[in-house]
Amino acid sequence: MTAKWEVLLAVCLGLFVLPQAQAQTPAVSLPADEAGLTEDIVIGSRVLAEFGVLDGFGHVSARDPKNPSRFLMSRSLAPALVSADDIMAFDLDGNAVDPRGRSVFLERFIHSEIYKARPDVMAVVHTHSPGVIPFSVSQVPLRPMYHNAAFLAAGTPVWDIRKDFGDTDMLVRDGARGKSLAEALGDKPVVLMRGHGDVTVGPSVKMAVFRAYYTDVNARLQSQAVALGGEVNYLTPGEGAKADAVNFVVLDRIWSLWKTRVAPKAQ
Amino acid sequence: MTAKWEVLLAVCLGLFVLPQAQAQTPAVSLPADEAGLTEDIVIGSRVLAEFGVLDGFGHVSARDPKNPSRFLMSRSLAPALVSADDIMAFDLDGNAVDPRGRSVFLERFIHSEIYKARPDVMAVVHTHSPGVIPFSVSQVPLRPMYHNAAFLAAGTPVWDIRKDFGDTDMLVRDGARGKSLAEALGDKPVVLMRGHGDVTVGPSVKMAVFRAYYTDVNARLQSQAVALGGEVNYLTPGEGAKADAVNFVVLDRIWSLWKTRVAPKAQ
Amino acid sequence: MTAKWEVLLAVCLGLFVLPQAQAQTPAVSLPADEAGLTEDIVIGSRVLAEFGVLDGFGHVSARDPKNPSRFLMSRSLAPALVSADDIMAFDLDGNAVDPRGRSVFLERFIHSEIYKARPDVMAVVHTHSPGVIPFSVSQVPLRPMYHNAAFLAAGTPVWDIRKDFGDTDMLVRDGARGKSLAEALGDKPVVLMRGHGDVTVGPSVKMAVFRAYYTDVNARLQSQAVALGGEVNYLTPGEGAKADAVNFVVLDRIWSLWKTRVAPKAQ
Amino acid sequence: MTAKWEVLLAVCLGLFVLPQAQAQTPAVSLPADEAGLTEDIVIGSRVLAEFGVLDGFGHVSARDPKNPSRFLMSRSLAPALVSADDIMAFDLDGNAVDPRGRSVFLERFIHSEIYKARPDVMAVVHTHSPGVIPFSVSQVPLRPMYHNAAFLAAGTPVWDIRKDFGDTDMLVRDGARGKSLAEALGDKPVVLMRGHGDVTVGPSVKMAVFRAYYTDVNARLQSQAVALGGEVNYLTPGEGAKADAVNFVVLDRIWSLWKTRVAPKAQ
Repeated sequence: MTAKWEVLLAVCLGLFVLPQAQAQTPAVSLPADEAGLTEDIVIGSRVLAEFGVLDGFGHVSARDPKNPSRFLMSRSLAPALVSADDIMAFDLDGNAVDPRGRSVFLERFIHSEIYKARPDVMAVVHTHSPGVIPFSVSQVPLRPMYHNAAFLAAGTPVWDIRKDFGDTDMLVRDGARGKSLAEALGDKPVVLMRGHGDVTVGPSVKMAVFRAYYTDVNARLQSQAVALGGEVNYLTPGEGAKADAVNFVVLDRIWSLWKTRVAPKAQ
Repeated sequence: MTAKWEVLLAVCLGLFVLPQAQAQTPAVSLPADEAGLTEDIVIGSRVLAEFGVLDGFGHVSARDPKNPSRFLMSRSLAPALVSADDIMAFDLDGNAVDPRGRSVFLERFIHSEIYKARPDVMAVVHTHSPGVIPFSVSQVPLRPMYHNAAFLAAGTPVWDIRKDFGDTDMLVRDGARGKSLAEALGDKPVVLMRGHGDVTVGPSVKMAVFRAYYTDVNARLQSQAVALGGEVNYLTPGEGAKADAVNFVVLDRIWSLWKTRVAPKAQ
Repeated sequence: MTAKWEVLLAVCLGLFVLPQAQAQTPAVSLPADEAGLTEDIVIGSRVLAEFGVLDGFGHVSARDPKNPSRFLMSRSLAPALVSADDIMAFDLDGNAVDPRGRSVFLERFIHSEIYKARPDVMAVVHTHSPGVIPFSVSQVPLRPMYHNAAFLAAGTPVWDIRKDFGDTDMLVRDGARGKSLAEALGDKPVVLMRGHGDVTVGPSVKMAVFRAYYTDVNARLQSQAVALGGEVNYLTPGEGAKADAVNFVVLDRIWSLWKTRVAPKAQ
Repeated sequence: MTAKWEVLLAVCLGLFVLPQAQAQTPAVSLPADEAGLTEDIVIGSRVLAEFGVLDGFGHVSARDPKNPSRFLMSRSLAPALVSADDIMAFDLDGNAVDPRGRSVFLERFIHSEIYKARPDVMAVVHTHSPGVIPFSVSQVPLRPMYHNAAFLAAGTPVWDIRKDFGDTDMLVRDGARGKSLAEALGDKPVVLMRGHGDVTVGPSVKMAVFRAYYTDVNARLQSQAVALGGEVNYLTPGEGAKADAVNFVVLDRIWSLWKTRVAPKAQ
């Protein structure tokens, strides 16, 4: 008799739990890592996909705080599908430390060269942000509309790959292109890539993701403000610096929300 | 044998009911309060998040009708996650009455100073409305496009924190800033905050939320009308006053709908 | 023992089926009516809500083919929540035939007066279409962008309630206002209402809903075309007439899709 | 006793699995076909519907690699509802090979005539893309904003049915109209249809769907860039050619994501 109960239970599990899991974004199964970087990369990748900042392309990485000459990034995979098991380690020349035959992103040099040039950067996000792409090919500079995007007040350089490399496939597919991009970024939190997207950086994965999200939102808001006509009253550099400091204080509030949107099982 | 039924039942509950709850917005567990204010704050916070008027930031409050020198507001939390247990009481200087170590919103002074200045106001909503922010930095005033946003006909002042306080972090983080904002609001139902968002007020939580929602919708509609070019035929002040009276009559119809969107368990 | 099976079954039903129903739009329970009008009104109301053409306001009605001096419409309720049990009958003066204490829409005179003036009209839809409202207050006339909205080629009059009635609450709250609106509609399929929304009519509920949907879509597309600058190559009147005939042929294809979006249980 | 277990199990299956299937897009039941074309057509149709490139209208087809004078396409049905059982074979005059009384698309001649004119084309997609329609009636040509839409650098002809056929119902309802459209397409990957939509082609269903999706996205991005004012820095022809080659390399990454969005059971 007991056996039959067990069979029923197993059948129930098979019928109800598995289909639910399949119908949604795959469950996040996060192994413990000390700094929580793996979880942050997974959450960040999925959040940006959930809100349309990323579609099937783009990537989130984190520098290894114990070994600053290495960084963590997913194998080549759509961001919405990234799980902890997909995270790999790379050195600062963009080589996978332990490839095991996994395919890697063509544009990992965005990350490696920025980590090389900017010791303060602990995370890098690359997106084809639909809000931002119009600004990447426009004469109108992206400027801060409100306090959540205050980090834009530091300036928003546009990197045009054609300037140094002529007609290309637009991709940052080697160290030279990555180095050129890192130089355009300079000491800023964001760089736009002409005809491509943008890169945001930060002292943590959460902050780099926050910046990728609010760069996209700000671009949409600025498009609307410009379309209204007349002068736009942007944040001043002084306001930008002060308001950006607050973003560090409130970051966990929105991150907590975002986690519930993409990783219910991890809560 | 009975024990096994109970085990099965418990397992079923654990497997199917709990994962469902986790996968959605957490269930609203509303304790009875006489005026239903707690429920209204929870529903209102979640509705505005559901429709994108709020993201991870912003807040909804209600004046305590039994003690008009106090108001109710959530602890510091993303609006989509607010539950009845998160609601705290504050005095009109923005002090938590019974903090018990809970973190509170930096900008609670928006609420406290408006309640102080406007005895008629029983609820306050603060958002970073994506429709409205472009108008907060534009020379184009926000004006009523249609009857659901008729309350805008009373005028839509823009408060620029820089005017009185110079370069700041843009936040209403003390009583002085809150008082300045309340003065800009005057006797209106809405005030825009430059480079930040807006505040709506009303004689009930439902009406303040309704106004926050339709201020956002109206702003998007007006942006489209302006982009078409030529003169726009806005509601007249007379039309605005008459049409706004109807909004009080039909308010419960849309509130009933909104409740089903955010609180299925509470129905 | 059998009893226990039944208990388990009942518990299962209670746990899984009911919560699912609550979490979604309430199930449509449609009583048989010969022409299927009740089901069409329910489906149409929910479809327009699902696609954002309606929010908490607006209504769908159908003339009773057996008694052309009566029409069917929901009691006062958000369209997304309308079920078959909510449908009431009205005469052409807007009086409920069998009110039984149910609240009715203030603007039922939109429907009654159009049915009075237009014997060919068998269904009427009133919305606050967010695409259309900007055109209702603009100097730019709404014109057909593509074949699915070909019916707009017949002309898109704008009814301004202020012309005949001065400063009002904008509502069609009596027969005189309804008559004025019906006169502005004339023999067209659509009339815009300044600062309010629009009305579409047709020989069936499905066609009136189709027109409400594509009037909204067309308005958004036209806004984008106008924003590009330069002349826009609209459908000619001849193209409009011919293409609209095809819409009657393909109507059931999209209606079948829409039904799956709002009424899974009715399939 | 065993019988009762079976009854319970059957009831459970009926209660929980069937309602879930009904509540979502119908499950894809894909019969094996050697090239996977049927699955690709089903996935592609549903993906484009899921992302709003298609609504209730439009279609995806594939040439039969074993019999290049035939192609596969759904019977007349909304794309979101297409399943493997709905796929039919047609000859290059648009005749169904084995109609069995099934209704077919009026515009199958879009597909038949392009397959006739372009031996390199193995798949054709026709949509009423909401991003693209404004460009189909505008003087502003659609141009490549970024690398994912690099294929637009080859040129984006606009076919105006009125030029050769005068006032029509806008439909490609016979071979002559299809031939005219195919001539306008020429050797390009995309042709816009004035007041109607667009057609994309490719060497595989996946690539034709990818192009339909990114043509829509690019059009929206270009609209935003144009609205910002000033000159827009589009991809050069050289960049377009090089970047499009990469799209073939990364196509499977986004296709894998798209499959999870529309066909969970097929994973």
